[in-house]
Amino acid sequence: MMSQEPTRILILGGGFGGVYTARTLEKLLAREIRRGEVELGLVSRENYIAFQPMLPEVISGSIGVLDVITPIRRLCPSTSLYTRTIDSIDLAHRSVRSTAGFGSRQHHLHFDHLVVALGNVTSFAGLPGLAEYALPFKYLGDALALRNRLIHTLEEAAIEPDAAVRRALLTFVVAGGGFSGVEAVAELNDFVRAAARSFRTVRPEEIRVVLLHAGGLILPELPRSLAEFAQRLLMKRGVEIRLDTRLAGATAETALLADGDRIATRTLVSTVPSGPNPLVAMLPVKKERGRILVDAHLQVPEVPGLWAVGDCAAVRDTATGDFCPPTAQHATRQAACVARNIAATVKRTERKAFAFTALGKMGSLGRRSAVAEVFGLKLSGFLAWWLWRTVYLMKLPGLDRKLRVATDWTLDLILPPDIVQLKTDRALGVRREYFEPGQVVFREGDRGDWLYVVTEGEVDVLRTVPGRGEQPVRRLGAGDCFGEIALVSDGGRSATVRAVSATSVLAVDREAFQAMFASLPPLRGFVEQLIASRNA
Amino acid sequence: MMSQEPTRILILGGGFGGVYTARTLEKLLAREIRRGEVELGLVSRENYIAFQPMLPEVISGSIGVLDVITPIRRLCPSTSLYTRTIDSIDLAHRSVRSTAGFGSRQHHLHFDHLVVALGNVTSFAGLPGLAEYALPFKYLGDALALRNRLIHTLEEAAIEPDAAVRRALLTFVVAGGGFSGVEAVAELNDFVRAAARSFRTVRPEEIRVVLLHAGGLILPELPRSLAEFAQRLLMKRGVEIRLDTRLAGATAETALLADGDRIATRTLVSTVPSGPNPLVAMLPVKKERGRILVDAHLQVPEVPGLWAVGDCAAVRDTATGDFCPPTAQHATRQAACVARNIAATVKRTERKAFAFTALGKMGSLGRRSAVAEVFGLKLSGFLAWWLWRTVYLMKLPGLDRKLRVATDWTLDLILPPDIVQLKTDRALGVRREYFEPGQVVFREGDRGDWLYVVTEGEVDVLRTVPGRGEQPVRRLGAGDCFGEIALVSDGGRSATVRAVSATSVLAVDREAFQAMFASLPPLRGFVEQLIASRNA
Repeated sequence: MMSQEPTRILILGGGFGGVYTARTLEKLLAREIRRGEVELGLVSRENYIAFQPMLPEVISGSIGVLDVITPIRRLCPSTSLYTRTIDSIDLAHRSVRSTAGFGSRQHHLHFDHLVVALGNVTSFAGLPGLAEYALPFKYLGDALALRNRLIHTLEEAAIEPDAAVRRALLTFVVAGGGFSGVEAVAELNDFVRAAARSFRTVRPEEIRVVLLHAGGLILPELPRSLAEFAQRLLMKRGVEIRLDTRLAGATAETALLADGDRIATRTLVSTVPSGPNPLVAMLPVKKERGRILVDAHLQVPEVPGLWAVGDCAAVRDTATGDFCPPTAQHATRQAACVARNIAATVKRTERKAFAFTALGKMGSLGRRSAVAEVFGLKLSGFLAWWLWRTVYLMKLPGLDRKLRVATDWTLDLILPPDIVQLKTDRALGVRREYFEPGQVVFREGDRGDWLYVVTEGEVDVLRTVPGRGEQPVRRLGAGDCFGEIALVSDGGRSATVRAVSATSVLAVDREAFQAMFASLPPLRGFVEQLIASRNA
Repeated sequence: MMSQEPTRILILGGGFGGVYTARTLEKLLAREIRRGEVELGLVSRENYIAFQPMLPEVISGSIGVLDVITPIRRLCPSTSLYTRTIDSIDLAHRSVRSTAGFGSRQHHLHFDHLVVALGNVTSFAGLPGLAEYALPFKYLGDALALRNRLIHTLEEAAIEPDAAVRRALLTFVVAGGGFSGVEAVAELNDFVRAAARSFRTVRPEEIRVVLLHAGGLILPELPRSLAEFAQRLLMKRGVEIRLDTRLAGATAETALLADGDRIATRTLVSTVPSGPNPLVAMLPVKKERGRILVDAHLQVPEVPGLWAVGDCAAVRDTATGDFCPPTAQHATRQAACVARNIAATVKRTERKAFAFTALGKMGSLGRRSAVAEVFGLKLSGFLAWWLWRTVYLMKLPGLDRKLRVATDWTLDLILPPDIVQLKTDRALGVRREYFEPGQVVFREGDRGDWLYVVTEGEVDVLRTVPGRGEQPVRRLGAGDCFGEIALVSDGGRSATVRAVSATSVLAVDREAFQAMFASLPPLRGFVEQLIASRNA
């Protein structure tokens, strides 16, 4: 037999779909990989797989940050792991382009089989202010950011003299009453109420936790009796549930509701919106609601060698005829099926159609309670919680993680909640902000350390005239700057600026301005002129 | 007796000096605080105190990230904690200004007694490229960033085809042979060599770990025999020690040494330079090498009510007549002394002078070895390591931390090292870069996604002409832009750019450019013109 080029199988995505495809292929094609007849590659943004069901527990710190994630390299040791961001997928040339982690050299990966398991992404498009102010809740980084925000608001509330500001700081809003929103609000509520005990000046009755849900009952995925149990329990623990209520937008200080109501808050978590991954959106193949349409073998019919699994794939359930829901259970089973079918293609044996009936559904409600529906059986309370922990501990990949999480849970029973705020974001120095009509951007006397550029809408500049109150000085629109005095002086604001219409601005701080803009002669000139004209 | 205003004691800094001052004051003035006669406040950038001696173990993950830090609020429950950045100190009006965490409102804290415990800061001034490329090692965030960098370089090395790039990725350089540099290099070496086992394609002999030290023997703080023991042990474990060698600068790809030699590396850790905190530098009081000069009572003689402790204070040791070294031991003892003297001032009793003889010195060398000098006794190897762990576990504030760290250490004995890379930095989209004369900024064909502005120095733009090799096209200097084509096209670079002299540039990526610059009409016009002229 002549020596031949190896068959290259490339998997895109480091979630359950991608990683379990690689794991199963390593088993099914072990001999072929050893002989060099097959090469396995996986491209993932992170070098770990996050165990999503445990993300809410990261909020409260009852599970260590590193313990809900497992290194992909350990799970599929025979696969070449590329921890990189994908730039583009070229189906015609059968290659995927990424950029090297250090420097700017380009990197092309060629494939014979491509498995797309890129999931979906958080998308706040169409809702004003959400991209700027809402906290998403999808990745590990999101859970950490939320935890830090909660501690930060408690820290500020503890020393805040203004009653209204204090109330907003102690109000926490979660949008979305599905599994992810309910688990997040349950952990958030438990954590904030327990942590507040370390803050002398914060009283428990000042804390307000609100769950917004578009439907008439939370957890629509579950039978009515379980959903009602969950709803009662959350309310008993102090969560205010607002049904038939949709989030419509946000400012830095408010959650805007679709019914026109608004809630003053500094912490708005949105678990609702998700859209297709841009790479999937750009693929020239048939889609169903943004998901790649595959056949019963999980292959894209019009492109041989292209496969898709998980949340980014539209897979028809053979039993019901509906499309599979986007859950980890389904992604894992689809991964096993696609691996079998690719192996069958390589070995020229027969492929099999995807068939799977979900085993059950579970949702944690925090502090030793949960709801579950397993094999048609409905469970709630402590028993469901015990089942939840046991099942997920068993499913958690890697023995070392199992041990660490079990230890975390044991320590958590006896230790107080952790309230250290681990700041990880470096200040950007540049940010977008959104203001509702009538909202104040800054007030006379505030510390001035940001320059603003209006990108959309209009603002009024107002100055206090003794005896006559605030008087309008000028109106500014798109492309206009204000607050530029902050770049040259350390004093307070000399005027108040208020949005006239819905207004988007770009804010740049002094340091960022010095570092960036000051290097560019045309811009420096422009700002110098602006400052001179305003002072004149 | 008439009711009177409370005495306000304000402490600046959340390190050992600041937190232990607050703790001791809470004990000594418990009655006065309860009666409202004394108010205690502490301003800290973080809401936790980091236990510095354990930072190196965060590199290897043998201690959980959250376990080396303790919430300040739990350590001093009767003190008002302000988790904020300080803007300025006004001695004349006896107030400290900070900005609220949400919004831009200013906040003034007034004091009768002010304890300055602001420590020192990392400063890379005067060494080109260090601010841009060297990793500092002082805060918890630094230890986490270093850990991520180590995993990132292993990930990249595992899939890198270019031998020279691969060698640089697998070379790790630590500058500074004092306690902090030695402990960091020991943990780094252990971790990289253990973690590399999870990377199929990385061979142990490819890994190079280098320690640079300006003197003739590492650990100058210790007796010669202990330092020699440490040096031998590190070398046996694979650390290459370069004595009498100073770091002079860095580029993205090289450590530049003072003797003109250079080491190709992507990981350069600098533990050496520290400078005074800018707030301390601006205080109008007498200083000794940037540290605030205090009397034997730890008060600033010329400003009654102003006190200083820790690394930012110049405290004369009464026994030797020298200034105290900047160690946690001294900061903690000075904190106790300053608290006693402030309490004595409040209660009108007698103050006491600071006197303290250090108990000993210890340095961890990683994997079950350490060096220690305690009560004149010299220890090395396993016994010293056991002592190190026991002493630090006892000193670690808080019972819950003790329990968590003890658990971490136990699990660490049986579990493999963790190799998940927890990315916490959001991409800035704007960065400064430094290039040595002759160094290439980018090459023809590289992916182009950054625009560059020369802020200092000169670069040559070169284009390949068939048959004649690279030909210079133009020379650019300060204020000039290049690479602007990246902002409008997705293709590779059309030319190579090389630094002529030592050159600093500002790099802006496409997204940052769109977000910021495109909003400003003058700048948009400038770049459009530039692109048009180059294409003409």
